[in-house]
Amino acid sequence: MLTRIHHVGIAVTDLDESIRLYRSALGAELVHRQVNEKEGLEAAFLRTGEGEIELMTPTRQESPVGKFLAKRGPGLHHVAYGVSDISEALEDARAAGCELIDNEPRVGMHGSLIAFVHPKSLSGVLTEFVQT
Amino acid sequence: MLTRIHHVGIAVTDLDESIRLYRSALGAELVHRQVNEKEGLEAAFLRTGEGEIELMTPTRQESPVGKFLAKRGPGLHHVAYGVSDISEALEDARAAGCELIDNEPRVGMHGSLIAFVHPKSLSGVLTEFVQT
Repeated sequence: MLTRIHHVGIAVTDLDESIRLYRSALGAELVHRQVNEKEGLEAAFLRTGEGEIELMTPTRQESPVGKFLAKRGPGLHHVAYGVSDISEALEDARAAGCELIDNEPRVGMHGSLIAFVHPKSLSGVLTEFVQT
Repeated sequence: MLTRIHHVGIAVTDLDESIRLYRSALGAELVHRQVNEKEGLEAAFLRTGEGEIELMTPTRQESPVGKFLAKRGPGLHHVAYGVSDISEALEDARAAGCELIDNEPRVGMHGSLIAFVHPKSLSGVLTEFVQT
């Protein structure tokens, strides 16, 4: 069961500049910043009330976020829903005919359990489940 | 001050099919469906726990959502933050150098006060404030 919109992922070209913008324009508070070498990105999580935004920039051009930026430019990249039971959420999505990117939950940057559903299964939206 | 991620807007080509998908795959609950002739779109709001998604399809090709779909295909269109004071949120964004689409709040589909900030001001993300 979905509990809330946990965060929205945004691909950006200049992480420092986007952090500055979101802090000054929206009053969003930086809570965490981390390089993820495996995914080839650096991410900054900013609190927007109860939810968060994840600003992401590639650390190498051929990473998924690097390819996204090259193809579409900066902007909305994915949406992540908080779920009470991530295995159940994945099973429900699979039963509804969705193609899963992660067949099993894995540990994300926050230590939460996460899993992604392919965008072609949900009207072009890369979708993440997060169980905190 | 931002209170939460109020909703995420998603542009789709077939509203009925996307509603069916999001209900079956995510267990999202349809709460409201409405044609907005002025904006040239039909929208369906679905509850995802505390947040919502707004599935939108154009009612005419030359509408903003029609042009978005023609250029980028279906997918994430905008993010809307709940705010406690929309005039203050607009003033903060303006003071930070953002270009506002709506200089003053206007009444949205739900009867809430809404206003949009231009995507070029926030790392390519069309951003909406909602005061309920």
